[in-house]
Amino acid sequence: MNDRFLKACLRQPVDATPVWFMRQAGRYMKAFRDIRAKHSLLTVCKTPELACEVTLQPINRFDFDASIIFADILLPLEPMGLNLEFVKGEGPCIHNPIRSEKDVDALKPVVPQESLAYVMEAIKLVRAELNVPLIGFAGAPFTLASYMIEGGSSRNYLDTKKMMYGAPDVWDRLMKKLTRVLADYLSAQVDAGAQVLQIFDSWIGALSPGDYRRYVFPHMKRLLSELHTFGVPVIHFGTGTATLLQMQKEAGGDVIGLDWRVNLDEAWALLGHDVAVQGNLDPLTLFAPISEIEKRVDDIVTRVGKRPGHIFNLGHGILPETPLESVEAVIQMVHEKSAKILAA
Amino acid sequence: MNDRFLKACLRQPVDATPVWFMRQAGRYMKAFRDIRAKHSLLTVCKTPELACEVTLQPINRFDFDASIIFADILLPLEPMGLNLEFVKGEGPCIHNPIRSEKDVDALKPVVPQESLAYVMEAIKLVRAELNVPLIGFAGAPFTLASYMIEGGSSRNYLDTKKMMYGAPDVWDRLMKKLTRVLADYLSAQVDAGAQVLQIFDSWIGALSPGDYRRYVFPHMKRLLSELHTFGVPVIHFGTGTATLLQMQKEAGGDVIGLDWRVNLDEAWALLGHDVAVQGNLDPLTLFAPISEIEKRVDDIVTRVGKRPGHIFNLGHGILPETPLESVEAVIQMVHEKSAKILAA
Repeated sequence: MNDRFLKACLRQPVDATPVWFMRQAGRYMKAFRDIRAKHSLLTVCKTPELACEVTLQPINRFDFDASIIFADILLPLEPMGLNLEFVKGEGPCIHNPIRSEKDVDALKPVVPQESLAYVMEAIKLVRAELNVPLIGFAGAPFTLASYMIEGGSSRNYLDTKKMMYGAPDVWDRLMKKLTRVLADYLSAQVDAGAQVLQIFDSWIGALSPGDYRRYVFPHMKRLLSELHTFGVPVIHFGTGTATLLQMQKEAGGDVIGLDWRVNLDEAWALLGHDVAVQGNLDPLTLFAPISEIEKRVDDIVTRVGKRPGHIFNLGHGILPETPLESVEAVIQMVHEKSAKILAA
Repeated sequence: MNDRFLKACLRQPVDATPVWFMRQAGRYMKAFRDIRAKHSLLTVCKTPELACEVTLQPINRFDFDASIIFADILLPLEPMGLNLEFVKGEGPCIHNPIRSEKDVDALKPVVPQESLAYVMEAIKLVRAELNVPLIGFAGAPFTLASYMIEGGSSRNYLDTKKMMYGAPDVWDRLMKKLTRVLADYLSAQVDAGAQVLQIFDSWIGALSPGDYRRYVFPHMKRLLSELHTFGVPVIHFGTGTATLLQMQKEAGGDVIGLDWRVNLDEAWALLGHDVAVQGNLDPLTLFAPISEIEKRVDDIVTRVGKRPGHIFNLGHGILPETPLESVEAVIQMVHEKSAKILAA
């Protein structure tokens, strides 16, 4: 069992820096595209054998130090009563978005062991095959609320912010409902075998520090406090978070995600070294020539030095067009370069 | 002549904080929608009488302290040889995007006094009518290059970064050509009557600090050094710039734009108080109830205090759906609250 990743989450010494990539099970791999040519995204998510298969594809092909269960952050919205569809080329679409107090009140409680049983089934199947730790995950309340309210991706979060500012009590009720569902969902994932949890607050960078403090922080703090009792490390991830990092740490998590807009050592110093960090290569770097990729990997690994508690990752998900050779090269570079630094 | 805005650009004392909004001539005003119902965006830009009319609409309706010439940052790309179209509901589309060295070499030099004469004409018409200062503007080289390369708006800047990383010499040549065109274009705007210049590096927040330093900073420094010789204040604007601000200041500009992701006083302290700042209300705030808007205006005005050199603005352009009452209320609040603080 390769436990570098678990050790790094807990800031324990490792022989080499662990690496995994967000969306590592994805379209950049032909094996994944072959599955998706035959099955919709939702079918893959809801068929434990298929979810298991695609989860394992990058593990079998590359030297990744962690696996993440294949699923989508929007899955828990279905049993809450939302009508979810993935429209080809357009991304997720929610046909009955949440706009009013009535809509929020109508959201159904979720028993994840029942309505999301397929995720737990997939986790069990994957665990039986793995020799690296398995990450379970969920979207964070703000990011999920933004999809529920906007009905899909958004540029300006107009309706989300309208609710936050104009009906803060309705917003808080929605965030509380989401927090309840997510805590139960993640608890079920741990029971099924998830060894680490990651919370994706992917779009949180749309908020001002004041709005984060008022509309998101209390809910994140409550959620992360509850996750803390599950006994597994928790990764708290976001993008565009340069001015939110300290509040994210205060909200909780054993590991804080860093995107490429911050210099890793400066962001870690700001956070304090009593927390681990994950990141922070720009996913677009993987389209550069290998010599250029190497400079950037060098830069991150050098900024970390011998300090324990760094998990190498991209700052956001890997893109579908990414060359396989770049993925392979980065993993090898990180392992070799960090091993050399750590042994020095 | 109301010269609060000019004074604030130069960090001179004012009686009240000047206010203007990016995209203040825009769809949130019925008068603007009426014009656009009859004429395409490009037609309005290219017809000096129409550009003048829409530029003046917000000035005649609201108590703004500055005017900005109505134009689009992509206009200079046309005489460079790009085929530009604004597709309804989809935004700008460039039908012959730049992808190769050959494409960059084929870009034409621009004599703005000829091919962009309509902008200078509009500036002259507007100046004759105004009793507040007039801002001329252009997109920054990175932001324009991203449109030229992607062919439109982008989420990940895949092809832009591919060129930056994979063909840095071609990238530098493109940035140099753009810098030349932009300096000449802005010089012509000043000759026509623009009293302040704003450079929009709207999408610069997509870059890591290291990439900004390597691929953008030298070009911005050259451009801003040249603009500095024109004898008018220059506003250097971007979004998502929390970790780029100090380099932006180093590149140049009398005023640095701040979006809502930073707290104004902290960002200003980071920049140093030897530069003015502009911002930083989230445009989405204008959809909040007036009482909530007031809290946020109070917060910004209080963070500034008596320090000279603040121009109140949104952190990015005003949205088409924005209520007119909010615009009116914010302008009045800023004037009254700041006047009270400054007089105390």
